[in-house]
Amino acid sequence: MSVPSVMVQPIGIICTEHVRSEETPIQPIFAPTCVGRVEVFPEYTEGLQDLEQFSHIYLVYHLHKAKEPRLLTKPFLQDRVRGVFATRAPCRPNPIGLSIVKLVGREENVLTIEGADMLDGTPLLDIKPYTRRFDHVQTERDGWHEEVDDAEAARRGVRNYSLKG
Amino acid sequence: MSVPSVMVQPIGIICTEHVRSEETPIQPIFAPTCVGRVEVFPEYTEGLQDLEQFSHIYLVYHLHKAKEPRLLTKPFLQDRVRGVFATRAPCRPNPIGLSIVKLVGREENVLTIEGADMLDGTPLLDIKPYTRRFDHVQTERDGWHEEVDDAEAARRGVRNYSLKG
Repeated sequence: MSVPSVMVQPIGIICTEHVRSEETPIQPIFAPTCVGRVEVFPEYTEGLQDLEQFSHIYLVYHLHKAKEPRLLTKPFLQDRVRGVFATRAPCRPNPIGLSIVKLVGREENVLTIEGADMLDGTPLLDIKPYTRRFDHVQTERDGWHEEVDDAEAARRGVRNYSLKG
Repeated sequence: MSVPSVMVQPIGIICTEHVRSEETPIQPIFAPTCVGRVEVFPEYTEGLQDLEQFSHIYLVYHLHKAKEPRLLTKPFLQDRVRGVFATRAPCRPNPIGLSIVKLVGREENVLTIEGADMLDGTPLLDIKPYTRRFDHVQTERDGWHEEVDDAEAARRGVRNYSLKG
């Protein structure tokens, strides 16, 4: 089946302290103290109205430094090969990243966030509110994540970030 | 600032019972009995390995029937105008949809899901596992959602779906 491709246009830029992939935490929970700045392009400022009332938001972004897609990959948290869609690895057929970050504040078109786990200069594609009603789901099975305990996850999840500076 | 646009290529099609936008539940929690079929294109089958171990997954998709973007819009759950990024409305600058659905099973490249809240024929862009570790976030403020009680949300959230057939 042929389905037309989709062109998306970044709506802003995410500025963080992470300039090297190998020193970037893999998820917001491993980057709680990492403050970032989301610079939404001014022409979209009106769309940010009411956003600051939410404590957490989804950022949808372009994994612009992702390497070639691989259908099988080792996730950062485990040394076993998994299907890429069963991981959050960047080497996806469509390099779209998703992070739930804490929204600390907004001034006009600029958001301050905590949990910034993306590279500096990451192109932003969309922002959505995270809500208990829609997004706080009770899972029954967490797949291979259940094989990784929290201490091991934290150790691997921060990557080399804690070694910096 | 000029940031290059990004071309994404659908990796599959989501088949649901919803053929009219106005009869489509707005989120999976309002569509718990709606079974859907995700037909991932066969060339990506290998990437689905291990996915069936997760009870819930994110589907990232193209809101292919979304109307023109509007920066201010009334969310389905409330009659007040909000910034579009503070809502999950489809009329976003980049029409990218996000749903957390229950993964009931997988046969090769075909997933069976519950909570199918998207239109039939929706182009799929990505699949990610939903995990307690990354995605079960304790919010402090849920914005305007706090003004809408659960009964009202359910009434509006199913839209005209319950009136069908």
